[in-house]
Amino acid sequence: MADPGGLRHRILGIDPGSRTTGYGLIDTDGRHSVRLASGSIRVGHEPWPERLGTIFDAVAELVATHRPHEMAVEQLIFARDPTAALKIGQARGAVLCAGLKGGVIVHEYSPKSVKLAVVGTGGADKGQVQQMIRILLALPETPAEDEADALAIALCHAHSMGIPARRRAAASWRDWRP
Amino acid sequence: MADPGGLRHRILGIDPGSRTTGYGLIDTDGRHSVRLASGSIRVGHEPWPERLGTIFDAVAELVATHRPHEMAVEQLIFARDPTAALKIGQARGAVLCAGLKGGVIVHEYSPKSVKLAVVGTGGADKGQVQQMIRILLALPETPAEDEADALAIALCHAHSMGIPARRRAAASWRDWRP
Repeated sequence: MADPGGLRHRILGIDPGSRTTGYGLIDTDGRHSVRLASGSIRVGHEPWPERLGTIFDAVAELVATHRPHEMAVEQLIFARDPTAALKIGQARGAVLCAGLKGGVIVHEYSPKSVKLAVVGTGGADKGQVQQMIRILLALPETPAEDEADALAIALCHAHSMGIPARRRAAASWRDWRP
Repeated sequence: MADPGGLRHRILGIDPGSRTTGYGLIDTDGRHSVRLASGSIRVGHEPWPERLGTIFDAVAELVATHRPHEMAVEQLIFARDPTAALKIGQARGAVLCAGLKGGVIVHEYSPKSVKLAVVGTGGADKGQVQQMIRILLALPETPAEDEADALAIALCHAHSMGIPARRRAAASWRDWRP
């Protein structure tokens, strides 16, 4: 594992869901990464405004506490079920707004490019992603699906960074608001 | 038209959309209502995070400027197109979070109940809603579709209020956060 002290770039990966939103924070230099924190934000059956408030607040707190330089979220993908799509869209809206309001620039990656970056094939299944995340981040346990997905999105962004240029820009990005 | 001075309850109706989000502010006593402001928040083809930031900021500004007691938004409805549903869901997430963060309690109404409240039939078309909104609020012009929908949602909430009890509760609701 790389020396965490040299890993200056902090990325918050988020996998928004209508019931469970995974998050994963990593410190990285673009090649070596360590997990700082990961887990899930769960909502129940309360009315939708309250659920979205819970998701917004949780992401806002992650941003305020850990001060990531950037956030990475999966791109909008084609969904088969329109009702599920509406719900996931809402959660995604809450996540992105919480990031933006926290002054973090948000990047989007397609599910295929996330799998490609982490497993090496765009058609990898959930179990393969979980195993590779465990190996790549030298985790003591296999992370839950949504947690692994969030860490995978963060790693995908880490791998895609042209670190030297980006590190120079990081200070200004932190204060950048769209 | 009722005397605006006696209309103590202020409602912000929002019709979220992926390209155009309608808004309508009314002052009401539950039976008589006047339009305070209405219009549209438009976004372009910039990346999604920026579009959602624009919607969030615009709703947050409406809330901060006009201090509505409550916000009313259409409920999640079944959509035929899953990709459109994801986009509308995102916009809705941004709208709801902006309202919640502004300390406004958010109510949801089905499209059918909104039409029923305003036109008298749940199967009313967009044109009928526009005409009835013009008549009910004594507007000098026919509002645009999304603007009319937003005002209709606000009116639907106004009509559904048990005003005496709600007016007493309004002060505490203003500070209520889910």
